[in-house]
Parts: sequence; structure tokens; C-alpha cells
Amino acid sequence: MLYLIGLGLGDAKDITVKGLEVVRRCSRVYLEAYTSVLTVGKEALEEFYGRELILADREDVEQEADSILKDADSSDVAFLVVGDPFGATTHSDLVLRATQLGIPYRVVHNASILNAVGCCGLQLYRFGETASIVFWTDSWRPESFFDKVKKNRQNGMHTLCLLDIKVKEQSLENLIKGRKIYEPPRYMTVNQAARQLLEIVENQRARGEEPAVTEDTLCVGLARVGAEDQRIAAGTLRQMCTVDLGGPLHSLIVTGGSLHPLETEMLSLFAVPEASPASRGTGDEPRT
Amino acid sequence: MLYLIGLGLGDAKDITVKGLEVVRRCSRVYLEAYTSVLTVGKEALEEFYGRELILADREDVEQEADSILKDADSSDVAFLVVGDPFGATTHSDLVLRATQLGIPYRVVHNASILNAVGCCGLQLYRFGETASIVFWTDSWRPESFFDKVKKNRQNGMHTLCLLDIKVKEQSLENLIKGRKIYEPPRYMTVNQAARQLLEIVENQRARGEEPAVTEDTLCVGLARVGAEDQRIAAGTLRQMCTVDLGGPLHSLIVTGGSLHPLETEMLSLFAVPEASPASRGTGDEPRT
Repeated sequence: MLYLIGLGLGDAKDITVKGLEVVRRCSRVYLEAYTSVLTVGKEALEEFYGRELILADREDVEQEADSILKDADSSDVAFLVVGDPFGATTHSDLVLRATQLGIPYRVVHNASILNAVGCCGLQLYRFGETASIVFWTDSWRPESFFDKVKKNRQNGMHTLCLLDIKVKEQSLENLIKGRKIYEPPRYMTVNQAARQLLEIVENQRARGEEPAVTEDTLCVGLARVGAEDQRIAAGTLRQMCTVDLGGPLHSLIVTGGSLHPLETEMLSLFAVPEASPASRGTGDEPRT
Repeated sequence: MLYLIGLGLGDAKDITVKGLEVVRRCSRVYLEAYTSVLTVGKEALEEFYGRELILADREDVEQEADSILKDADSSDVAFLVVGDPFGATTHSDLVLRATQLGIPYRVVHNASILNAVGCCGLQLYRFGETASIVFWTDSWRPESFFDKVKKNRQNGMHTLCLLDIKVKEQSLENLIKGRKIYEPPRYMTVNQAARQLLEIVENQRARGEEPAVTEDTLCVGLARVGAEDQRIAAGTLRQMCTVDLGGPLHSLIVTGGSLHPLETEMLSLFAVPEASPASRGTGDEPRT
């Protein structure tokens, strides 16, 4: 049996009791290592679970599904995923390969960022399609995710924006030379995401378009959702450019316009303090 | 401290390790009893948790928040919710009341139906706004939820339809006479939801409109997601009218039109067998 087990979002103890029982009895336990991170590392998980974990990075999952699935027809293998196994990244490819090989599978669900963001008080059933914001480079500055935000706002829906993660990326030079040397991991902050969004807004204005979002659009920044030190900040898109939410992972919500009174009241618990008049609206805020 | 703890979707062991630790040390533990059900009852939870649970129904949560929060400034109180505390039903009211009283709160997240439906293989980030389908009566047959399905489909998004639950409902007679006698609980099936949807389609055709959904629209019925005996069935809306998915809870997804190849491949694992030609398209299928 192949078990796909969600680890939730915070630390080692966010696994379910059912999930932990399975982990402790499986013959091999893989940890998916590329789409997300917990606030604790592999070692803390291994100590709590009492099991050695085999890291599975993107190459492994896509190219080496068969080694993960080896003997899973006669023994139990666990594949651990931060969040839920069918959350932000689906693991359909592994399920399909298992099914082709006649290996049964079972899913042990857990919280994912896609439902845990409800803790800010915005109602989950009012979210539209989820967007992803990628790191821009000097030459690659895609604006296409903005269409989803626009479509959602036109329909009165909130947009959850998942922010880019760069793990095990190679520099162009190392890639060309075939050197398996990896850059340090990078996690997009709410500040970076908000600045990219504002740049798109300005580009649209320069083209004479009416942007679906402005500096004053109400947004919610979230950091380390589910962890003890999680942070939530509600304020304008401009405020999101400078609010300090600490370490990764961050997510950004662009609200859909009119709010339910309960949503408004909940967001007020997390309101970013108004900036002093001297620092407001000068347009001189640092942008990098 | 007030702890809002998600129980997940299956049975007693779907609570997280963190959640279980909190439950075992709190001075009082409430179980929210009106929006959803696990496949096991209160007694099974009490036995596994080793704690007595106080049932909190809709009246309690809305009118008696203060009794739930009594002494929570000096001791720990847990409020257990099937799924995630901010899933299909938010518990913002309880959080806001606690905050007014100066009582800190913490959330222990878990899977909710809103993310666990990803197990069918449809990509969660392609879902639009969530719809709710209520039981029709002879005189009350609202069609408004269909607008959400339509809007989502126009934008290529899937729609998760949460199906009605009637728990602790009183008959009109008992309500008028003030008798606290409750009807047996009712849970809408995928069959019932699909038939109501098809009736709306027919009404729209009768009015000369072009419905956004037809008998042949690809849908997914899900039952008891997260439990050992969960069932998933992918097929046309017409097939959803008769597919047998067993006991509650059920959910229905109306797909958004074009699918990603991985979505198609995953859904094929759950395809309802084609009906034999003799029973197809006669329009004589029973409707009740």
C-alpha cells in the first residue's frame, strides 16, 4: 500500500494520529522536499516520528516514482507531504503510477494553506481561483496571474496568491556546466509580491487601462499559517509593500471587494496600524 | 486560552497529535454538533480522547458563547469542529466574542472538505466560489446557487457544491407549540442534488434560456471523504442522479469545462460505468 500523508502546516505534531501510526509502521518513509516547508527541519520530524526519512525532491518524484513505489505491492510505503497531499501541489502523478502498477493507495488528509487561510476571517467559500506569483527577473516579468485576480474581483471573490519558492535552483552557469551546486533557497515575501502587483497596476495605467486593483485595495498578508508564531496583517496593497511579517512561508490575499460584516470585524483584529501622516502618500517609499 | 481544534473528516484518529494533546489537558472540551458529522459518534471520540465532550449545538454557539468561554482567561477550553475550524462554517463569532472578553485563542487546523476534495484529482486552485445546495420543499425551490455554478463555468472553474444537512430541525407543529422534539437528521445525497440541478436546467430551457450546465456536464460525486470507505464517482450530471454512493456526507463537484490531462486521467480512475443502451436516454428514469 502507498500512503500519501499530509503533515499540515506547523511543526512535527501537526501530523494526524492516524498519519503518525502509519509512518511508524511503514517499511520506507519519503518526505517530499520541494513544494513547501514546515517551521521545523527533517531532523526534528525524524526524531518525533522515530523514523528515518528519505528526502524526495522534484527529480525523484517525477523521474523516480518507480523507486518510491518499489515493493509497495507487498509492503507499506509512506510519502509525506507538507500541507495536504492534494493541496497546492497535487501528487496525481504518483497516484497514477501506483495505479498502473496495481498498487493500492490511501490518502491521510491534513490542513493545507488553501483552507487554513480561513483563519484570517475571510470566508473560504467566497474565494475564487487561486493565483501563483512567481519571482520576476530582469527579463521575465509575467503579469498573467493578474488576470485571475481581476476575474475574481469582477465576480466579488477573494484571491489567494501563493508566493514563489525557489528550492534547489541552479545558477545558469552551474546548470550549463552540469554541476549539482544549488543556490540558497528563496521564499517570496508579502512585500515582494505586493510590489510586483503594484508595478503591474502602474503598467496598466501607463497603457491607459483601468486596473482591477489599486494601492488602496484591501489585502491580507499571512506568514507561517498554523505555526505558533503565525502573523496576519490586513491593510491596503500599499501597506503590504512594507509590513514586516518575519520569515517564510508567506501568502497574500487580495480581497474581492465588498465584505460580509463578520469578515470586516475579523480583519479588524489584524489591521496594520495607520502610518503617520509624514510617511503617507508621498510616493517616495523605497521600492526594493 | 480558547483552542479551536479541527477534527478532520474521517474518525477519531484524524485529530492531529497537537490537537489531541490540547484536548487531553483542557479543563472543558466542547464538540460542535451542527454543521457536519464524522463517521463515528460522540462516544467513540470520548473513548479515544479519554475526555468527556460537551455537545454544543447551534443555539449554544450563537447564544451561549459566554458559557463556553467561562474562565477561559484563567484555564484552557477546547472547541472541537469537524473538518477545520474555519472551513465550510467559520467560527468567527466565537473568536470575536473571546477577543472582546480579552481571552486569547489559538487554532489547530485540520483537513476540511474544501481542500480534501482534491483527492478526486481535480486541481484545487482551479475551483471557483463554493456553492451550497439546500433541500427543496414543495413551496421553496431556490435556484440562486446555480448562478455561482454558471459564473464559475463561464470562467473555466470547477464548483464544489456542499450539500444540505438538517440536524435538530423541528416540525412546524412542534416549533409552534414550543416542543423541543426534533426530526431525524437528513443529509442530502448526490442523487438528490443532481436531480435538483437538472430540474433547474429544465426550468431554464422552458424559459428559453441556454443553461450553463446540461445532462452531459461532467460531475464528480464524493461520499465520506477521508474515511476508509470513501467513494468517488465521476460521470455526467445525469449519471449522478442514480449513482449509489452509500451513506453521508456527500458532496458534488460540477467541473469547469476543459480539464488538464492529469485531471482527466485521475477522474478516469473513478469513472461511473457506462449504462447499457437500453437504460440510456429514454428520459423515463425515476425522479424520486
